[in-house]
Amino acid sequence: MFQRILIANRGEIALRVIRACKDLGIQSVAVYSEADRDASYLKIADEAICIGPGPSAESYLNIPRIIAAAEIADVEAIHPGYGFLSENPHFAEVCRSCRIEFIGPSHESMRLLGNKSAARDLAKENNVPTVPGSDGAIEDEQEAIRLAHEIGFPVLIKAAAGGGGRGMRVASNDISLHSALQQAQAEAEAAFNDRSVYIEKLIEQPRHIEVQILADTQGSVVHLWERDCSMQRRYQKIVEESPAPGLPSSVREDICKAAVRLIKSAKYINAATCEFLVDKDHRFYFIEANARIQVEHPVTELVTGIDLVKQQIKIAAGEPLPWTQDQIEQRGCAIECRINAEDPEHNFRPSPGLIEEWRPAGGYGVRIDSHVSAGYRVPPNYDSLICKLIVHQPTREEAIACVRRCLDEFHIKGIATTIPLHRRIFRDSAFIEGGIDTKYLERTYTNDEA
Amino acid sequence: MFQRILIANRGEIALRVIRACKDLGIQSVAVYSEADRDASYLKIADEAICIGPGPSAESYLNIPRIIAAAEIADVEAIHPGYGFLSENPHFAEVCRSCRIEFIGPSHESMRLLGNKSAARDLAKENNVPTVPGSDGAIEDEQEAIRLAHEIGFPVLIKAAAGGGGRGMRVASNDISLHSALQQAQAEAEAAFNDRSVYIEKLIEQPRHIEVQILADTQGSVVHLWERDCSMQRRYQKIVEESPAPGLPSSVREDICKAAVRLIKSAKYINAATCEFLVDKDHRFYFIEANARIQVEHPVTELVTGIDLVKQQIKIAAGEPLPWTQDQIEQRGCAIECRINAEDPEHNFRPSPGLIEEWRPAGGYGVRIDSHVSAGYRVPPNYDSLICKLIVHQPTREEAIACVRRCLDEFHIKGIATTIPLHRRIFRDSAFIEGGIDTKYLERTYTNDEA
Repeated sequence: MFQRILIANRGEIALRVIRACKDLGIQSVAVYSEADRDASYLKIADEAICIGPGPSAESYLNIPRIIAAAEIADVEAIHPGYGFLSENPHFAEVCRSCRIEFIGPSHESMRLLGNKSAARDLAKENNVPTVPGSDGAIEDEQEAIRLAHEIGFPVLIKAAAGGGGRGMRVASNDISLHSALQQAQAEAEAAFNDRSVYIEKLIEQPRHIEVQILADTQGSVVHLWERDCSMQRRYQKIVEESPAPGLPSSVREDICKAAVRLIKSAKYINAATCEFLVDKDHRFYFIEANARIQVEHPVTELVTGIDLVKQQIKIAAGEPLPWTQDQIEQRGCAIECRINAEDPEHNFRPSPGLIEEWRPAGGYGVRIDSHVSAGYRVPPNYDSLICKLIVHQPTREEAIACVRRCLDEFHIKGIATTIPLHRRIFRDSAFIEGGIDTKYLERTYTNDEA
Repeated sequence: MFQRILIANRGEIALRVIRACKDLGIQSVAVYSEADRDASYLKIADEAICIGPGPSAESYLNIPRIIAAAEIADVEAIHPGYGFLSENPHFAEVCRSCRIEFIGPSHESMRLLGNKSAARDLAKENNVPTVPGSDGAIEDEQEAIRLAHEIGFPVLIKAAAGGGGRGMRVASNDISLHSALQQAQAEAEAAFNDRSVYIEKLIEQPRHIEVQILADTQGSVVHLWERDCSMQRRYQKIVEESPAPGLPSSVREDICKAAVRLIKSAKYINAATCEFLVDKDHRFYFIEANARIQVEHPVTELVTGIDLVKQQIKIAAGEPLPWTQDQIEQRGCAIECRINAEDPEHNFRPSPGLIEEWRPAGGYGVRIDSHVSAGYRVPPNYDSLICKLIVHQPTREEAIACVRRCLDEFHIKGIATTIPLHRRIFRDSAFIEGGIDTKYLERTYTNDEA
């Protein structure tokens, strides 16, 4: 086992990894930017090293400075957390070339999964469903019509060079396909100077369901069941839970097995997440794989009783997974709320500043993962996540009641947070019913976001 | 189910019950003395009523004032917590005569178990082992010698009217019995003006192991396994855990079944705890039963996944227990540390005052039950418990590592606490080994307490 690990991250996940190190009896080395110099978790680490000014490019994204810190602190491994350099294959490669273990996959399998088109091909090869569509740009309207009939309407026409919804059109039949294609091509040309478009099936009102995977160096790959992360705002997850409510158990099994097949075929090692869209008929489509620990990993930890960050470290140290697939059970229901320093009353603008009072919820079934406390000043430089409230109860109904109680109990003075949004969500009948889609939040609370 | 419950208590257990009420969708009414008027949990309750000045006799122990508050607030039930009026059969009787449900047993079974001699008789009738000894005062030396031979040396001679160790002597053979008897009788006469003594077997280096019981109004009685509470200082529990380390599983089963027999025979309803001494050969002896929720209940909650306070309320409302005995499993290891506002450097003198900074531990496997936070002033009037740190991990080894990490992480400024004592305990090799006896702490740390 490692003696000493550097954590190349900040905030709650840095503290999360420091805690896992301490639980394992490993010394932890934190790094920090000048903007984070007063963070209290730096005192919990065995050592803390300043790696530069506030802007991420000069500190948390600066590979030479992080490697220098790792060499000064004489660590054997680096945990990248999530975000920042966590999915940068070059960083993983540099770490290992400096004889520092990167706690994550090889840079090769990270590159493979990081390339959406390669990951999609891999999924197809392994009989993992993907969103049906053209493999690349379409040639002409004839091909578009042929494909649309093959995959079934409605279809989505997307600019190949696109992003942010520009050059994107929905078509429901041959007639609308004709005009949608012309509009999308014209828009794509205007926006990206490239009129090529591709076509894929429109998944209507999809749910976002993802599968947690662990894979060891001996070739053993297991899933830790699924998480439902459909409560999103602008592709940012707001609430995550496990199990996914109302998902038939045969579908649950199938998605989890598909994720294992995919990760196994990528010769992947360590923790990964396979993300899927699930349509109204419970058909699922692989969209991407993430080669890191996720923000929402605690819900999986609570339902399985497995500490994922400890396991990441053990895997990187060469330890085999201690269980077989059938020993990993999903018990009860866990729900996480991301509490961000953002003002939901003002279009979710960031609200950095001094936290004057801080009284988190607690008690039975409640876990708080947070690096902040009274007197902490939220810096304006980074991600606005300040706390993860995670509950675990025997049933989803009880978990929702418990979250509601915790949200009422939570007392924060000094900055605006997303707690008022969560209070609405946990009294929303469609959410309580279960099975909302990824656009539900935006559709429902659009007026508030104006 | 009840609509509205009054909590006749204060501090962490008041907050614990308020939380359970909220989780169940029940309105909660807190009561408080003038010394507690600034406690933040009062804002979490739906209503808070002042019941008098700081001294307990004028507030938390004052039955007419509590009943008046319950009538003003129009509650259907009262939860007594632990301590204060929780084991006062008269209070239970008054509540029910005012048509307010007392969340606990009937006053009859509370009286029965509250009488040590009656409880001992009940145990004997139900084949539950008790500490062997004379049933009451002994007549003369002849009887003492006969009994000592019957139960086996060493024996303890105790003043019948005694307490606090006065009039107490150990005898290891006939000769020492003769002098011990005379000394004990003389001391008893001097101290209590009553020279009668009784004799019981000395349980050498006993462990304190207790069994959690739940019993519903339908007559169903289950145990929720055991807790080991041997880490004590002057009969005050300091650390509690479940399961009891190193206890053979046949003994564990036998103790738990004995506790169920006893509680069943008392026609007891609601939560109870049966306390046992366990000797070096794993023989166990019933000592007493507690007719209330215990401070250390969270360790049982974590290993069983059952919310005991919710269950207390459900039982009082007439709901049947939702599981059979074989559905109640003991999973992993849970350990609780009582963090008291006491100064271990100065013979554990109370350290009330202003908490200037408060950063509790958190993260995977960590539960914090506490009513305090930064800016809270610990009043000098009451029990010194300010926080329960409870961890849950797959193994005892991991649980100990996790507690150790939490103790290092915990940051409190402004008052002295027992955290430094806990830090020593969780690095103590005999404790880590498991199976220490109830005098271990006093024997080991005597010098510090001078």
